[in-house]
Formats: sequence, C-alpha cells, structure tokens
Amino acid sequence: MRREMPKDLYALILAGGSGTRLWPLSREEMPKQFLAVCGSETTLLQQTATRLQKLTGADRIRVITSGKWRALVAYQLLSTGLKGDFVIEEPEGRNTAPAIALGIAELISRGATPDDMLLVCPSDHLIKDEERFVQAAELAMDASRAGNLVTFGIKPTGPDIGFGYIKTRHDSAKWLDVDEFVEKPDKDTAMSYIKSGDYYWNGGIFCFRISDMIEAFNDCFPEAAPIFSADRERLASCFLASPKQSIDYAVLEKARNIACVPLDAGWSDVGSWDSVYENSAKDGSDNAASGDVVLHGGQNNLVLGGGRLICGVDLDSMIVVDTPDALFISPRGSSWKIRDLVRDLSSDGRTEAAEAPVSARPWGTYEVLCKGERHKIKRIVVSPGKRLSLQYHVHRTEHWVVVRGAALVTLCDIADSSPKEILIHEGESFFVPKGKLHRLENPGKIPLEIIEVQIGEYVGEDDIERMEDDFSRVTIQG
Amino acid sequence: MRREMPKDLYALILAGGSGTRLWPLSREEMPKQFLAVCGSETTLLQQTATRLQKLTGADRIRVITSGKWRALVAYQLLSTGLKGDFVIEEPEGRNTAPAIALGIAELISRGATPDDMLLVCPSDHLIKDEERFVQAAELAMDASRAGNLVTFGIKPTGPDIGFGYIKTRHDSAKWLDVDEFVEKPDKDTAMSYIKSGDYYWNGGIFCFRISDMIEAFNDCFPEAAPIFSADRERLASCFLASPKQSIDYAVLEKARNIACVPLDAGWSDVGSWDSVYENSAKDGSDNAASGDVVLHGGQNNLVLGGGRLICGVDLDSMIVVDTPDALFISPRGSSWKIRDLVRDLSSDGRTEAAEAPVSARPWGTYEVLCKGERHKIKRIVVSPGKRLSLQYHVHRTEHWVVVRGAALVTLCDIADSSPKEILIHEGESFFVPKGKLHRLENPGKIPLEIIEVQIGEYVGEDDIERMEDDFSRVTIQG
Repeated sequence: MRREMPKDLYALILAGGSGTRLWPLSREEMPKQFLAVCGSETTLLQQTATRLQKLTGADRIRVITSGKWRALVAYQLLSTGLKGDFVIEEPEGRNTAPAIALGIAELISRGATPDDMLLVCPSDHLIKDEERFVQAAELAMDASRAGNLVTFGIKPTGPDIGFGYIKTRHDSAKWLDVDEFVEKPDKDTAMSYIKSGDYYWNGGIFCFRISDMIEAFNDCFPEAAPIFSADRERLASCFLASPKQSIDYAVLEKARNIACVPLDAGWSDVGSWDSVYENSAKDGSDNAASGDVVLHGGQNNLVLGGGRLICGVDLDSMIVVDTPDALFISPRGSSWKIRDLVRDLSSDGRTEAAEAPVSARPWGTYEVLCKGERHKIKRIVVSPGKRLSLQYHVHRTEHWVVVRGAALVTLCDIADSSPKEILIHEGESFFVPKGKLHRLENPGKIPLEIIEVQIGEYVGEDDIERMEDDFSRVTIQG
Repeated sequence: MRREMPKDLYALILAGGSGTRLWPLSREEMPKQFLAVCGSETTLLQQTATRLQKLTGADRIRVITSGKWRALVAYQLLSTGLKGDFVIEEPEGRNTAPAIALGIAELISRGATPDDMLLVCPSDHLIKDEERFVQAAELAMDASRAGNLVTFGIKPTGPDIGFGYIKTRHDSAKWLDVDEFVEKPDKDTAMSYIKSGDYYWNGGIFCFRISDMIEAFNDCFPEAAPIFSADRERLASCFLASPKQSIDYAVLEKARNIACVPLDAGWSDVGSWDSVYENSAKDGSDNAASGDVVLHGGQNNLVLGGGRLICGVDLDSMIVVDTPDALFISPRGSSWKIRDLVRDLSSDGRTEAAEAPVSARPWGTYEVLCKGERHKIKRIVVSPGKRLSLQYHVHRTEHWVVVRGAALVTLCDIADSSPKEILIHEGESFFVPKGKLHRLENPGKIPLEIIEVQIGEYVGEDDIERMEDDFSRVTIQG
C-alpha cells in the first residue's frame, strides 16, 4: 500500500560497528552490516536503507560510519537508490551518543529544522516483517510529536541474556511508558522478565523530535552538547572531546520523557551462526544451505558454501561456513565460541581474522585469488569512470589481463612530466615493470574486470608508493 | 641392518587400480596409490617402491599400469630412485591375472630367467613395519625356492567383512599350508574365522619362482598362457585375448603348491577415511590433523586441510577433507557412504567426481587455480628439459607469466615453416593470440613455474589442436 510520506522525518543509520561473531564471513575489516545473510541477496545495511526509504524517501537518509568503511558504505548503498551525499564520517568510533549528536549536527547544517523528527536505526539487524516495522514507526512518530523520546521495544522471543531489557508500563496513550532500562540479566531474571510481559529487548532503534533530543543532551549529557552548535571547523574536535558513551546510558536512561513502542516484526540481531540458522529458510530435512552444497542424509544443518563444492554425509545439527581463505565448522550451539577463536587467531597474527577476501575501495573491489611465495594473483574490478591512485612498486612487477571491459593505463617514469596513456581491451594484457609509475582507470560504461599477476621477491600490500596527480610534483617517499 | 640382496629376485608393482573411496582426495583420475595419506610425505606408490628396493635394488622393479597413469607413475617414482624403463603399460585393465602374466613376459624379454623369483605387490596399501615385511618376504623367498606359490596372509586385526580370507594349516615347514581361499564373509562367519586363528586376510601380495607361475597358468588358466611366449608384436593381442580374472580366482585357488607366509607388519588397505584415521598419528585429543588446521575443543577427528585455514570448534568424531575444488564432511563411521555420493556426483555430471585439481602430464603438472565464465587461471609446472606439444586454440588467448625458471616459447603461424623462438625469464610475461601455433618448453635446470591466464568466449580443456613437430606437415583438424 502506498503511503503519504511525512515531510518532517529524517533517518540516521548507524553503520560504524564492527564484530566478528559471524566469522569467517564477518571479519574486523568486513563487519556484519555489510554481509548478505539468511539467504538474502542484499546486505543488512542495504536492507536497512531500503526499509527506511519506505518512510522517508531516498534523500532524507544519512549513514554515519568510520572513515575505513566510507567506501564500502557508499559502494553498497548507491544500488539502493539513496540520494545525495549520504555518508557522514566519524573522526573515530566513540559509541552511539556522540555519533547521534554528530548526525543531528550534520542534518541541521544541511537544512533539517529542530522540529523535524529523526529515526535512528542500527544497520546490522534483520527485520522480516517490514509492514509491521512501518506501522510501529508511524506510532513512534505520533509519540515523538507528543514530545517523547521513543525507543522501540523488541517483543522478546525467549529469555535471552544477550540483550538489555526495557521495563514498561501501560498508560493512557497508544504507546508504553518506560520504567527503566536494565542491563543484560542472568537466566533466571530474564525468565521472570518474560513471564511478567512488561519487558522488551532494547534493539537500539529510536525516534524523536530533534529539538527534544538536543534538550535531553543538554540535561543528561552536556559533555557532548557542544557538537550541536559547533561550526564545520570545530565539529570534529567537539566530537572527539565527548566521552565514549551509548545513547541509552548517556541520555535515555536519565531523560524523563521516554516512551516505548513495541516492535513485533521478526527482528533479529543475527548475532551468531545459530541465529542465522534460526532465521534462514529450511528444506524438508530442516537444512539451511546456500552455495554449491550436496547433502546426503543428515538434518538441521546450516551450510554456507563459498566457491567450491561442499559434500556433507549424515551431518546432524552442524554449522559449516566456507570462504575462499577460511573454513569454519562446529556443532550448532557452539558457534558463540567464535569470539575466543577469532581472538586467538588474531593473537597468532593470522590475517584471516581481520582481512576479508574481498576488499572494497572507493574505485571498486579487489579479491586475492591465490598467494604464493613469490607471486600473488588478484581479481580487480574497477567501477565505470573510476581510477586507482598513481603509484609504483619497489619489489614487484604487475601483469594485467583484461577479462571484461576496457582499461586506460597511464604510465610514466618517476619525475617524467609526459605520461603515456594506453587503452587495453578485453583479452589483451599489460606489463608494469618494477619502479614504473602507473595508474589504472576504467574509462568505459561497464565494470572493468582484470586479473593481476604480481611477481617479485616481496608481494605484500604495503609495497606501494602513491603519487600526486600533478606529475610535476611527484616526490618519492620511503 | 644392511642385507645381502638376492640376485634372483624381481618385483612387480600393480599400479593400474582405480577407486574413489578417499574422495575428494582420490578421484577417478587420481586413484589412491598416487596419494600421500596418514601423514606421510610420500605416496602409497612411492612407499611401495622404496620398500621393495630394500629387497631387490632399484633396477629390478617393474610397475604395471594403464596408459593414462604412465606419466604419473613415472613422475612419482623417478624420485624414489627406480632405474631403467620401469613402467609396463597394460593395453587395458583386465584384472590381476593377465597383468601379472604380462609383467612376467616383459621381465623375461628383458633378461629375467624362469628360475628367478618374482614378488608381486599392490601399490595402494600401507605397511608400517618395513622390517617385518622384509623378514616375511625372505621367508616367502625360501618357500618359493622350495617350489611354492606364496601368498602373504595378513594377520587380521578384526572380523572385517571387506576382505577375502585364506584358511591355513600348520605343516612341518616354517610357512603355512593353504586349505582354501574364501570370499568376503558375513560378520558371524568372519567372527568365527578370527576365533579359529587359522584365517588370514588376502592382501594380494605374492611371491613365486617365475617358472612355477608359468606352469600354474598352463594348468589353471591356459587362456592367458600365450602371453608368456608371445613376441613383442603379438603381446598386446594375447593380453587382450585373456579373460578378465584375478590371480587368486584364476590360478591360486586352483593350484596345488600354495603356501602362506603370515604378515604382521601394520598392514592396511586404507580403504576408507575411517581407516585413514585409524592409521594416522593423533594428538592429545586423539585428533589427526594435517594442513592449516586450528581445533578448539572436541576430539577424535580427522581433519585434512588443503590450502586454506580450517577452524573447528567442539568437533567430535568428524571427518573433514578439504581440497581446492571440493570439501567433504561426515561423522566417522559414515565415510563408507562416499561410494554412493561420488556415484551421484558423476551421474549429475560433476567434474569434481573424476577430475583432480592437479593433473600430471609427461612434461609436468598443471593446476586450475580458479575458473570464471570467460577466464581460467592455471599454475603450470614444466620439468627441466621437458616441453608441451605444439598447439593452438580457437577460442582463447593465453597469457603466461613466469614465476620461476625460464621458458622457451616456440611461436609460428599455421603452415609457416619458420618458427620464432623466444626465451622468457622470471617476472616476464608472454601473450599467445587465438589461432597462433605455440609450444612451451623448459630449457633450464630447475622446474619452470608459470601462471597461465586464459581469456575467451570458451575456455574448456578440449579447445586444443595439436600439431606435428615437423612444421611442414602441419595439418589443421576439426
């Protein structure tokens, strides 16, 4: 059903979080919000942006994230139709309170008024029933217009000890009053919460009138209040001056005018492979499988394939997650131990703990297909019109073979001000000697896909010297 | 201890067998004998050849195999120090009786006499205690010299229903008389065999004087006897004229002078992943792991890694076998179901059932690193002094990057009698256009390793036209 969109609503997506609870799919450099899980074609971030567009339209959504994710956020959200310069960059991660204040300051500087409302959503949650979410959001807007800071209360599906809870009380209005926010409880306490029926999970989704939130910051968290009135130059320093605190702890738990709107829309934080299994479609044997998977016998398994054929015989309640460089296997119920596993991998200096097989860059993506002692092979995809930085390498030669599209290669000697430009077509190849200044560009209308073979005594990512675009100012570092 | 080697002993290794019970490591095109299992650095075939050299020396061993394995057998056994032209090629697989007759005929044509003895061994078995094997072999030689056809009786470790049994009887001599050979029994019968103590497994290891075996063929299996006296020209046709029969069924079960020498030397046919686990070294948690494997908790697992990191949490009695293109997972005890699995994969036309990631060729090996719709990337290793055939491709261009060693490339146009030769060094690359005649050669002293990137509308292995070496006789097929 087509709705009248409110003229006074903005949305802020929090996309700065990181975590490895879905390792090896999620990694330090590829957190959960950027992944497509539970059989979806789109990532959790993309789903969040698409969901919110039903409420606000494409030009009233902002996404706040850290500098390292800016490229990936832009890369994923352009396809959802978001408009304008929608990425807000945190100088550093300081938890949700300063982030929301920064988001509000940016919105105001771009034309939002104190009377406008803001819907704040995490980017790494699953919400199955979008219609119910929209209904809850509309109720939340009413509550906000009535002067409340609204938190969405997730209807608990069980006595989960992984969430904070919200104790509510019915009042005359269509929404609930909030008695208190309570930290993650123990099992028995959680059980009693469920019995009482007054408790909801705190899912970190909020709605409020901007002026009310600014006022609440002034009352409850004045250390961050300067962010709202800071000019462009001082914005970053005001942000960095704020203590690291969550919006719940810093503001909502202290503010008076808090309301709760229940949300019963198939919400999940997909915080473990077990919860991914719960939220995935199953076959007749209750197996949830994706990719090139053949299961003989067995039941109740989650098997996520990568590029290869996976054959399971008589598997029962197992989790198998395959990626190009790492494979994870455990019984269901043990997947929460991934935190310790990844911690140990990191302390052992394993790159698989942090680095993702596919890395996003402002110009596109690259994937390491295979590594050897003296060579590395990558698939590089450059978006139409994009180009890599002008660079050279001390220790390696690079051989490029164009698989799809056309590549414009700029080549010149260091301190040479007359660069050569060569156009390379599908099926052709190009050789970049050690020490030669080069730049790769996609001048075409379709993505440029090349296979890069690196050969050298050292093929680490850090053997790269980037140059100024103005050749006359080329200076050699390192 | 250094032994005096008998002057009258030859050895024949049967290496024509195939099977996929260790899939995905063993495949139709990569049978068990060519694999290194149970933590060994060398393959079962290499172990067999090394073991036999302690008895016969490097120049008195022959290996009989099919044409498709000739290259692989030679490739693997050269490193074991075997001397001479040691590969005997079967025109086709016709079971062990004709194979052994062919082996004997070849040995005689190369100087073996009817009085010499022959030790016949399969190539796909594990024997842990080599000293005991040598002792048993020496006893078998004594029994052979006394005119017996000797079969080695494997001391049973349990009532296995997967083997044929040999019923024996003590006589005055140091070896046992054979009452009968019995087919694979049911569980109860096998149990009674074990209790009686008179039964041994038939492991297919034999020792005999050549003249005695020829006589036994004449008496028991005359259909194959013409093989012994056939001249070079008629050898193949005589071989092909023989019925397909095992040496046990065709000869030994019917011959009179059969003796049995017990073998208690940690023998195993490693016929399943469960038996690989049994025969592998375990850690403190009874895990047998190889490759890049990290196990948190759990016990009693067999985990064989490929190139990637494998992380298992709380795995209990599982089998995990990882290869570049296929991954197998099952609980221990279910691995025998692999036969059905692979049969289904084959009938679904899956190449992973038959093709091995690494293929051996007379000139070296190649490995498919990754496949795409319009490209394929291979690692090609050419042995020193070897070269590939002169060829061209209709649908693909080939880009070669030399990672190690030096490549001599011969290039010419079809029907052009003046080929160009180009030498390419480490770090350099070379481009072969569609339709261009080319040949790759390693003129150096170390293996040549190149990365080949194929690009084209079709990149199947069958897009290849091979040419005569004499350019003037180039004729285009297909």
